[in-house]
Amino acid sequence: MARNSIGKNLSLTSFGESHGPAVGAVLDGFPSGFQIDLKQLEQDMQRRRPGQSNLTTSRNEADEVQLISGVFEGQTTGSPITFLIANNDTKPKDYDHLKDVFRPGHADILYQKKYGIRDHRGGGRSSARITAGWVAAGALSKQYLENTNATNLPEPIKITAWVKQIHTIEIPKTDQIPSKLVIEESLVRCPDKDTSIKMIEAIEKAKSDGDSLGGIIACSIENCPIGLGEPVFGKLQAILGLYILNINAVKGISFGEGFHVANMKGSENNDSWVVNNNNEIGTVTNHSGGIIGGMATGEPIYFEIAFKPTSTIGKTQQTLNAELTPIELSATGRHDPCVLPRAVPIVESMANLAIMDLFLEMGTKRF
Amino acid sequence: MARNSIGKNLSLTSFGESHGPAVGAVLDGFPSGFQIDLKQLEQDMQRRRPGQSNLTTSRNEADEVQLISGVFEGQTTGSPITFLIANNDTKPKDYDHLKDVFRPGHADILYQKKYGIRDHRGGGRSSARITAGWVAAGALSKQYLENTNATNLPEPIKITAWVKQIHTIEIPKTDQIPSKLVIEESLVRCPDKDTSIKMIEAIEKAKSDGDSLGGIIACSIENCPIGLGEPVFGKLQAILGLYILNINAVKGISFGEGFHVANMKGSENNDSWVVNNNNEIGTVTNHSGGIIGGMATGEPIYFEIAFKPTSTIGKTQQTLNAELTPIELSATGRHDPCVLPRAVPIVESMANLAIMDLFLEMGTKRF
Amino acid sequence: MARNSIGKNLSLTSFGESHGPAVGAVLDGFPSGFQIDLKQLEQDMQRRRPGQSNLTTSRNEADEVQLISGVFEGQTTGSPITFLIANNDTKPKDYDHLKDVFRPGHADILYQKKYGIRDHRGGGRSSARITAGWVAAGALSKQYLENTNATNLPEPIKITAWVKQIHTIEIPKTDQIPSKLVIEESLVRCPDKDTSIKMIEAIEKAKSDGDSLGGIIACSIENCPIGLGEPVFGKLQAILGLYILNINAVKGISFGEGFHVANMKGSENNDSWVVNNNNEIGTVTNHSGGIIGGMATGEPIYFEIAFKPTSTIGKTQQTLNAELTPIELSATGRHDPCVLPRAVPIVESMANLAIMDLFLEMGTKRF
Amino acid sequence: MARNSIGKNLSLTSFGESHGPAVGAVLDGFPSGFQIDLKQLEQDMQRRRPGQSNLTTSRNEADEVQLISGVFEGQTTGSPITFLIANNDTKPKDYDHLKDVFRPGHADILYQKKYGIRDHRGGGRSSARITAGWVAAGALSKQYLENTNATNLPEPIKITAWVKQIHTIEIPKTDQIPSKLVIEESLVRCPDKDTSIKMIEAIEKAKSDGDSLGGIIACSIENCPIGLGEPVFGKLQAILGLYILNINAVKGISFGEGFHVANMKGSENNDSWVVNNNNEIGTVTNHSGGIIGGMATGEPIYFEIAFKPTSTIGKTQQTLNAELTPIELSATGRHDPCVLPRAVPIVESMANLAIMDLFLEMGTKRF
Repeated sequence: MARNSIGKNLSLTSFGESHGPAVGAVLDGFPSGFQIDLKQLEQDMQRRRPGQSNLTTSRNEADEVQLISGVFEGQTTGSPITFLIANNDTKPKDYDHLKDVFRPGHADILYQKKYGIRDHRGGGRSSARITAGWVAAGALSKQYLENTNATNLPEPIKITAWVKQIHTIEIPKTDQIPSKLVIEESLVRCPDKDTSIKMIEAIEKAKSDGDSLGGIIACSIENCPIGLGEPVFGKLQAILGLYILNINAVKGISFGEGFHVANMKGSENNDSWVVNNNNEIGTVTNHSGGIIGGMATGEPIYFEIAFKPTSTIGKTQQTLNAELTPIELSATGRHDPCVLPRAVPIVESMANLAIMDLFLEMGTKRF
Repeated sequence: MARNSIGKNLSLTSFGESHGPAVGAVLDGFPSGFQIDLKQLEQDMQRRRPGQSNLTTSRNEADEVQLISGVFEGQTTGSPITFLIANNDTKPKDYDHLKDVFRPGHADILYQKKYGIRDHRGGGRSSARITAGWVAAGALSKQYLENTNATNLPEPIKITAWVKQIHTIEIPKTDQIPSKLVIEESLVRCPDKDTSIKMIEAIEKAKSDGDSLGGIIACSIENCPIGLGEPVFGKLQAILGLYILNINAVKGISFGEGFHVANMKGSENNDSWVVNNNNEIGTVTNHSGGIIGGMATGEPIYFEIAFKPTSTIGKTQQTLNAELTPIELSATGRHDPCVLPRAVPIVESMANLAIMDLFLEMGTKRF
Repeated sequence: MARNSIGKNLSLTSFGESHGPAVGAVLDGFPSGFQIDLKQLEQDMQRRRPGQSNLTTSRNEADEVQLISGVFEGQTTGSPITFLIANNDTKPKDYDHLKDVFRPGHADILYQKKYGIRDHRGGGRSSARITAGWVAAGALSKQYLENTNATNLPEPIKITAWVKQIHTIEIPKTDQIPSKLVIEESLVRCPDKDTSIKMIEAIEKAKSDGDSLGGIIACSIENCPIGLGEPVFGKLQAILGLYILNINAVKGISFGEGFHVANMKGSENNDSWVVNNNNEIGTVTNHSGGIIGGMATGEPIYFEIAFKPTSTIGKTQQTLNAELTPIELSATGRHDPCVLPRAVPIVESMANLAIMDLFLEMGTKRF
Repeated sequence: MARNSIGKNLSLTSFGESHGPAVGAVLDGFPSGFQIDLKQLEQDMQRRRPGQSNLTTSRNEADEVQLISGVFEGQTTGSPITFLIANNDTKPKDYDHLKDVFRPGHADILYQKKYGIRDHRGGGRSSARITAGWVAAGALSKQYLENTNATNLPEPIKITAWVKQIHTIEIPKTDQIPSKLVIEESLVRCPDKDTSIKMIEAIEKAKSDGDSLGGIIACSIENCPIGLGEPVFGKLQAILGLYILNINAVKGISFGEGFHVANMKGSENNDSWVVNNNNEIGTVTNHSGGIIGGMATGEPIYFEIAFKPTSTIGKTQQTLNAELTPIELSATGRHDPCVLPRAVPIVESMANLAIMDLFLEMGTKRF
């Protein structure tokens, strides 16, 4: 394996396995002299934490982040920042039954094939537990992007993700970016109350059936500086795509009108340029989702992400064991029947990291 | 601007503008001693070439590739391979009316904002003409991946793209990967004859209306070695996503069941592992589109790509001029009313480059 | 700060500060299924450890390496390997007198200027303590390169460094590569016994004078595969140079005849090609130090490295304080009067990492 | 081969062979809106050009640079800049006698071993002719670094290289940085007139003997901003080392006192900090050569580079032919009897590229 680092100017290196001593990440390139809000960092970790409700895995981890390096007296020093998150509630025994069996829809058979060895406990390196380090790093990037003293922008860059659909249950169509507060009030991080209730019921039903559900997360980025993104192989949508498609269980990403754009004519889809109230350029409509030619238009960036249903389920499935003999499997262990509620902060973190990486690139590049 | 290179082991550097002396690319990391099939390279260039039918732009370019370096007596030497494609049929005058106006849906206003200068002739660096260099490089990667002597694989890695949908016209649903020959027989590169005819009519209609159409391209990759892809930040879908989302006009990418996965349960979506006829692992179904945990399963990889309708259209639109005053624009110049037919070889090229980059990474990595 | 990672195929990410909770490193790209010899790893750490003799700093650190990730049941899994080394014997109080003063020859004033903040305790990020993580990673690379089952080479790649000169005391000229055992028998890691005694005396004298000494370390690499190195911007000498020049206190590196080459004629310096006993190509002489055209010739690679005397000394020096007022300083705190003995394993580690990075690149690159 | 690109923020991709249609380079990341001084660019090319005096190879190339991309109406656009330099005076026939013989000290046997194929004409990819592209790119970087409107620095960053030693002939010791005008007045680019004459004689003698000479080039960098360089794996000396050690025929690099530092005590070598006339920090002495802890101190950076004598010589030497049978060789073809005079602009170019890459990194990195 290689490619456990991502980012050019702000580089995130991920490490750790589900049931090793710890998971974590090293964040390199973060500017110096930035005062970290530890309380907010902790809160962001809580949003991803397992065991936060009965809709999620019962694994119970405090997910306290230990800052190993790069911070001195509460401020960043410019040195790489290391986030370490201990694995405390490990129950490797629970996974003994998966040692010699390969789960359908799960990568463990591919790890075994490719590496000739795998840490089977809780999925090892393929576990979404490793995103704890990503969320810590993303939470810090968020603090930076939202701080106009740091970015020297007129408005904070603000990234908001929410659950738009779980299984067949979808929120009513709207162009409004929902409030973070409203999103957090929902156990499933869906900003529409009624939809939220139906989603919870659906997840509970899936859980009791030993099954799992997929869905769609939406994400918006407000106040991105015009021109963000590098227009050939660093297109804004491609860099966001790279970060988001590396999140476990993601099967697709689309921007603005997304796949609906296929049905459109140029005269319908084109966004006309105007000068807005702030005397800045903008567009009348925002079919493009805030990105044209690989660069930010200044309008809110909007994208949607498809998540598959969790592959590890209780229901009986056909599969292979270590000898490649067909067997039946009803998986136990602790898993989320639907990953979307906990994926919301992961999406936000990856988006924050991607945007900050491109933002740092804008430095001195124009004469 | 930076990030005009893509790839880690096989690195493509793109250069050139629509109306400069030439466009081109440098391909670094290509193995030595490979006999290039120049005729096939030329044919692949012809598939992307403008002016190939009355459905495409009337710009007439031979698109002959000059090999500036890295090839000796018909074989690759291991040195970087430079592809140079002259811009002959340039009509900069045709673009004079765009010098001081910013087209809706087009990046020229963003170039102007970000760089303080732009080459307005034919879109300059933002023109899809620069993909000529990508297609040349991708055509060479294709020759490599299809050559089992080179890859030392039992079967050629074979990448096929086709037009699945233009505007509201879609091909009948099927699991079959269409034949390249059948695809090439169609002027719009759609493997279904009847659909093809309707698509052509739709494009002709849009053209005469001064409008443009979007659509969906599908792509399959056959015989990818099991385990291809680096499972954390080099996930197969993320690397493919990075390459594909950098193609002009792309607004979304999805793998396997794609966004439909949102509506599925784990018990429906999971692909059960089996041992297939070649005594190799595989899956009974292929909802995952050949990728699980960021690695190839050995089943055909399948993904779909949404293309927006061409932004430059003849119809009158509201926009801004160089003084940021609102004006009306009816664009002339030469453009495709629908980019999809010519985008098919571009998609294939980017996929070939992405796959070959990851393939070269598999070298000595296992003890 | 950025660029805390080094290496393309085998990437080392360094983190930590002298007096934070720990220093460490993440090693990404290491092949899977490799059995780690933990005892040997520990021994290599002991060679760099402070407090190993009265010639080195009195800081006392066990320098036990905690393997946080990437290892399962004693074998590498292919996942990134995280080495964590606790900082136990920290005496931040000892550095209070350096909080508001900038040492001559030391980077703390530059950290303050560049980052606006610095961790002054024990040099913070600029301390050579951070090389503990590099040595752990290098020790593992060594095990790989010396293991012919892993490399599939006829002979182990063997890297040996030794102290050639301290201040004016130099070992007798010889073409022999000294034995590692003999080197380790010497407190200063000098393979010549008599020279060794004189060096020790010189260091003790410098120490009691409150002064420090520079010197030269020599390094050889045996059994490098012919052709190792990428001949344009990945020249073997350039990659070795990059790794070695990043070691604290290094002021120069030279290969083969080194700067003496300036005085030579082509007819003297050229190494004639021959076929050697193993029926392999080689050279009659080895003025080139085993590298021609940026690639390994198969002959032993040889290079020398100049180390400056430790900048922190007890002797009174003129310098500036935090208010940029001139002051006199007699530094205390714990430092090596001569870094060379402990730098030997650091040089070996960086060379092992550099060579392994290039070695992994040789994988499938030839058709 | 891979690694034909160098640089993170300002990336140079090199391509071409000695006797192919052209050599060149792509420079990516150069800021937009910079007015290129084409005359000065041409002059810098002339300094590297072959055939500039009877001391250099008789190959006669105009070395006119064609700007293929990235420049519009004389200004950079931010897009990658492609420099193309035609190979006109190619005499491939002259090299027929080298087709089946491997020159001592030359890499062609290693190319053959590694790649199984090589372009033997004029050294192919290993020829220093490919540095024409580097010099073009470096010349542009120089224009940027010397332009205080571009860098927003109080003084131009000015890089000067000169020949300090050829064979045993050395210029008198001085701390003065010589004037570029004086250097250029000398056929061998040595600023001391008397030494210059002796050097010319020595080269002429070597030439008539069918032999070649090595030497030392010195280089200074004035007005580097304090703090330039990334202090862990992007140390200023390491990045300069990487660029310089990739120049053909270089066997060593040293900074400040260089290898002489080995003989020094800390109390002698340490540079005391002071506040200088501009109310900026500086050092009383400059033993460090302007770099401490991997960062620029603000004092002039100084380094020396050892060049080996040209390996291709007329004198008869023992070597191997293509069948690996020992033979005698007296090489003909056109070569410089001493590469140093023409290497001066190459050294400056690589230094300019390295410094500009690190300079662009200083952008927004501090809060």
